Amino acid sequence: MNLDLLATCPHTRARRGRVWTAHGPVDTPTFMPVGTQATVKGITPPDLTELGAQIILGNVYHLLLRPGADVLREAGGLHEFMGWHGPILTDSGGFQVLSLSKLRTITDEGAEFRSHLDGDTYLFTPESVVEFQRLLGSDIAMVLDEPAPHGSPREQVAEAVRRSVVWAARSREAHGGGSQALFGITQGGTDEALREASTRATVDIGFDGYALGGLSVGESTEEMMRVIELTDSLVPTDRPRYLMGVGHPEEIVHAVARGVDLFDCVLPTRLGRNGTAYTRAGRLNMRNAQYGTAFVPLEPTCRCYACRHHTRAYLRHLLKTNEMLGARLLTYHNLFFYQTVMREIRAAIADGSFPQLLEQWPLQEAAEGDSPGGEG
Amino acid sequence: MNLDLLATCPHTRARRGRVWTAHGPVDTPTFMPVGTQATVKGITPPDLTELGAQIILGNVYHLLLRPGADVLREAGGLHEFMGWHGPILTDSGGFQVLSLSKLRTITDEGAEFRSHLDGDTYLFTPESVVEFQRLLGSDIAMVLDEPAPHGSPREQVAEAVRRSVVWAARSREAHGGGSQALFGITQGGTDEALREASTRATVDIGFDGYALGGLSVGESTEEMMRVIELTDSLVPTDRPRYLMGVGHPEEIVHAVARGVDLFDCVLPTRLGRNGTAYTRAGRLNMRNAQYGTAFVPLEPTCRCYACRHHTRAYLRHLLKTNEMLGARLLTYHNLFFYQTVMREIRAAIADGSFPQLLEQWPLQEAAEGDSPGGEG
Repeated sequence: MNLDLLATCPHTRARRGRVWTAHGPVDTPTFMPVGTQATVKGITPPDLTELGAQIILGNVYHLLLRPGADVLREAGGLHEFMGWHGPILTDSGGFQVLSLSKLRTITDEGAEFRSHLDGDTYLFTPESVVEFQRLLGSDIAMVLDEPAPHGSPREQVAEAVRRSVVWAARSREAHGGGSQALFGITQGGTDEALREASTRATVDIGFDGYALGGLSVGESTEEMMRVIELTDSLVPTDRPRYLMGVGHPEEIVHAVARGVDLFDCVLPTRLGRNGTAYTRAGRLNMRNAQYGTAFVPLEPTCRCYACRHHTRAYLRHLLKTNEMLGARLLTYHNLFFYQTVMREIRAAIADGSFPQLLEQWPLQEAAEGDSPGGEG
Repeated sequence: MNLDLLATCPHTRARRGRVWTAHGPVDTPTFMPVGTQATVKGITPPDLTELGAQIILGNVYHLLLRPGADVLREAGGLHEFMGWHGPILTDSGGFQVLSLSKLRTITDEGAEFRSHLDGDTYLFTPESVVEFQRLLGSDIAMVLDEPAPHGSPREQVAEAVRRSVVWAARSREAHGGGSQALFGITQGGTDEALREASTRATVDIGFDGYALGGLSVGESTEEMMRVIELTDSLVPTDRPRYLMGVGHPEEIVHAVARGVDLFDCVLPTRLGRNGTAYTRAGRLNMRNAQYGTAFVPLEPTCRCYACRHHTRAYLRHLLKTNEMLGARLLTYHNLFFYQTVMREIRAAIADGSFPQLLEQWPLQEAAEGDSPGGEG
């Protein structure tokens, strides 16, 4: 998988590109709505097309547990199962094994764990995770990796790097190629030496794209940006770069400025379900009493369905009465907001105004407890 | 409000008609999706148009509690507030005061009650309920009534009839007319003498349409059908008749055969949210394991979005994983199913085949605990 470079920013490392998948093109930089369990929560495939998503993310861990390999095989893969016929990237489940599953035992062979749902035992090996993603038929598969939790001792981070490289090589071998792309994932936390070693080893194995793993898990934004800058200097420019699980809109803009092409994050969907709306003026808690008689759109300049047809007062009413439509409309709006930011990023890189756009999105420290994590 | 008679069935009392409201025409017989709290649960106004609904139902009791009169007044009424610009019928709240509120005291003045949400005290009078529906701007307003619970002693049913007639007269007086229609509601349970007295007195007052209240609350289907037949002989043919809170598709078909024009029921929405789908072959619990690998549409002949794009296996997966999209898609399908039944009823009356259609829907006794009630 090559990244076709359509434009580059002369003042930053931002790239406007396009990758071709088995299910069509993806214009980068792009944001992938998270569809963990074969659905972007509350949103249909036609909704996704309407709001401008070109590619979505699925998750090996959740899909293996439910509906399971047999159902997905018989369905003819994830696209057929969920009725989304655009590109899909599937995450390998390393992060979920660490954060959601019980009683996990990680050895060089793989990760044995008990399901967080029923306690059944599963074994993920680099090979089995590649095989499952073949079955899913995702357009971009991810290698099994071992992220070290934020704040781990250096030896533990180094061990996770070592094992992730071993697994990456076995994944590459098991995958073999074909129309499904396979991305490597670098680890090393915010330790520059370890991250560099991980990145060099992963690039040496050779993948269709390179993902930065183990970030947005509690480190500072500055630390994350330093890791991205380091990565930019080490991975080939003709391959897409994917910053996993990130993030806030301003983090995305600044990561684009450092050469990142692909993003995913649960924030727009999870916050939307919980009643928080993204706007140009920041995030709004739509349950607040002040919106009770606000007969204006959520965001007057937004062209999404919710903003064209409904008021803040109505959205607040839906949230206060726990009406499902409130979660649906805010999720839709938030995803539309993210896609609008990505459209503006792509246009700005193409027309040379990206540095000005960057200035509109000053970096902020994430609020306490605001790490995205996964969507269960 | 006149019912324009477009066709009548020569073998039954079924009528194909049209009523004109301030927000457009309604083709009868029709089914009104229930939008208790200013939303049909999980469904947008464009969805409602797409699935064929011409008129929806709102509820005075719930709307007065949340968002309340001030918000709805400032919004410019219920249509503006919720963004649905087709016809709306608002139920007066008598049923909810009896079934949902705490510590109610009913006198000839009105019904005083405490909110089921926060215990605040409210007073519904025939006049205040008419006034609130003026504020809402609904196309069809309902008088405040007092349904007697199923199984009440005859004296209690008689007292509810007496009071409902007094309230109906005061409602008529308070309303005055204009483009908003006002419907009377008959009571009397399944007691034919009381129901007849209630109906005659209500017709004497004179309304734009006549509703049958206090049914589908536990009586047998045969008893309900007898009450409908009685009503048919007593109300003027040029006014729409509305069977409140009913019901199962076969009940609707048989009530149409007895001259009913308007229906509403929570069943398609509530059952949809809970994972039950309507099909020609009966209701299916889509959580059942047998659908786990059923890669066929919910109903192959159905043209709704869910049936054209998704499989039973996928719907089951969404329900088993408690994904919001499952509730949304089944609600959509069930409402589409009801609208399809109504389209077929209207077509059959028009082309003379209604008796054959009636045979396809044999009456069944409702299952235990299957009384629709209200949607909270």
